[in-house]
Amino acid sequence: MAGPVGMIAGRGLLPVHLARTLRARGREVILAEMNGFPADNPDGLDLIPFRVEKLGALFKALRKAGVQELVFAGAVGRPQIDARKFDLKTMTLAPKFVSAIKGGDDGLLRTVLGIFEGEGFTIRAAHDLAPDLLPKPGILTAAQPSDRDRKDAARAARIVSVLAAADVGQGAVVAQGQALAIEAAPGTDRMLAHVAQIADACRPNPDGARGVFFKGPKPGQDRRIDLPVIGVDTVARVAEAGLAGIVIEAEGVMVLDRDEVVRRADVAGLFLWVRPAGDST
Amino acid sequence: MAGPVGMIAGRGLLPVHLARTLRARGREVILAEMNGFPADNPDGLDLIPFRVEKLGALFKALRKAGVQELVFAGAVGRPQIDARKFDLKTMTLAPKFVSAIKGGDDGLLRTVLGIFEGEGFTIRAAHDLAPDLLPKPGILTAAQPSDRDRKDAARAARIVSVLAAADVGQGAVVAQGQALAIEAAPGTDRMLAHVAQIADACRPNPDGARGVFFKGPKPGQDRRIDLPVIGVDTVARVAEAGLAGIVIEAEGVMVLDRDEVVRRADVAGLFLWVRPAGDST
Repeated sequence: MAGPVGMIAGRGLLPVHLARTLRARGREVILAEMNGFPADNPDGLDLIPFRVEKLGALFKALRKAGVQELVFAGAVGRPQIDARKFDLKTMTLAPKFVSAIKGGDDGLLRTVLGIFEGEGFTIRAAHDLAPDLLPKPGILTAAQPSDRDRKDAARAARIVSVLAAADVGQGAVVAQGQALAIEAAPGTDRMLAHVAQIADACRPNPDGARGVFFKGPKPGQDRRIDLPVIGVDTVARVAEAGLAGIVIEAEGVMVLDRDEVVRRADVAGLFLWVRPAGDST
Repeated sequence: MAGPVGMIAGRGLLPVHLARTLRARGREVILAEMNGFPADNPDGLDLIPFRVEKLGALFKALRKAGVQELVFAGAVGRPQIDARKFDLKTMTLAPKFVSAIKGGDDGLLRTVLGIFEGEGFTIRAAHDLAPDLLPKPGILTAAQPSDRDRKDAARAARIVSVLAAADVGQGAVVAQGQALAIEAAPGTDRMLAHVAQIADACRPNPDGARGVFFKGPKPGQDRRIDLPVIGVDTVARVAEAGLAGIVIEAEGVMVLDRDEVVRRADVAGLFLWVRPAGDST
């Protein structure tokens, strides 16, 4: 498909990075920006503003621009919906929404994707359009995880994996076998800031292993929607938290601006390990 | 059994409370204090200091004092063990320790309990010696949980329950269906202090449900060892975190100084709900 990619763009660094990557490959990108959730648009891309109440208008504008492929990139919150503003199309879709909203975030997301697909659009995942965002397994830095770091990584991966059953958590910090923090809805940055405050007092042996930050996808997550992301900010926060390194699940976590991430990790003496799921070393 | 209760006493408020409760019922208590983990002894109880390396001496002293029943109360960390100081008895027990240490905290604990039982002592749980520590199901305060609070409690209970598979977590904070925090090794107080910092920025609707703190036992926890505990400090920290109330799993969490806990919760306008496991309201 040669037309522009339509990007339903939310917060965070992913939309800008992804748009640049696609345009560098000769693919045009058009942003669709939800009312109340302004998209970051430093490169001045064409922008279609929309309201959830007027999906009919959005579908029409996307088709007019020649968009057949859509990517959802970046986080948006739940919009406040004013049913009095519904256009005709949205009104016919309302029953689907109402039942999906009761089903929690994952169910709602699937419904939204299904609605766009029902209109004839193809949903592409960010890592599918830009496969380089998912690094191959291996250790990308000069620093290497020790055996103790590998054990801490295995424990953190296990915690994130069991939490999927409660539809929460994509990250954890483990040091010397102890879970120092488990990521909840407020996200990675707040968790790492918390670890920076408490870690020195909470490691069983102050001179022992520093601990690792692990990030992985929720098992069962719809992979058409963003996988978790790390970037240069993650490196800074992990360094501030006094940890030994970063572990991401291979095929499950995107790295934005990878060269710069690795460079900064090297400067900070951190390792960055792209760890295959189920690794038991 | 009419002899004194031997209390292997660790940190926290439980040992002092439990000793007072037992003595008020006419039962004498002797403290056993592990080297490096001083017991709080405001009532000047008889004290047997011991080292893990010299368990033979501990068994002898306990028997000499007429102790047949033992209770483990309060937290102790992992002691630094100096094998050169082992007495004969401890040396014969060493192989059991070594294999148990590899099995994680729960396995180690079971081994320790088994060693004392093998010496002829009976291990009693704190709530078994003082059943009043476990309140009956119900809402103990003037404030009552709303329907939204009940939903938040159900979600928090689910999170704590799935985390048991990774041997971590006995608490969680949920507001408006969002997990604001999940308890890790640093414990409840640090989690609630973190929530006090972030909660105002993290509730989806600033004017919506304030959220609940839920605490429950790890499913599968050896119930001869302390169940989790709340007390007046918990009430203060939950109030500081701006939450609506406290939910504890019935039969699974001990309340120290219950009358005062309820009085302070009432003053703060918090509810305290002793929730049956599996409640679905």
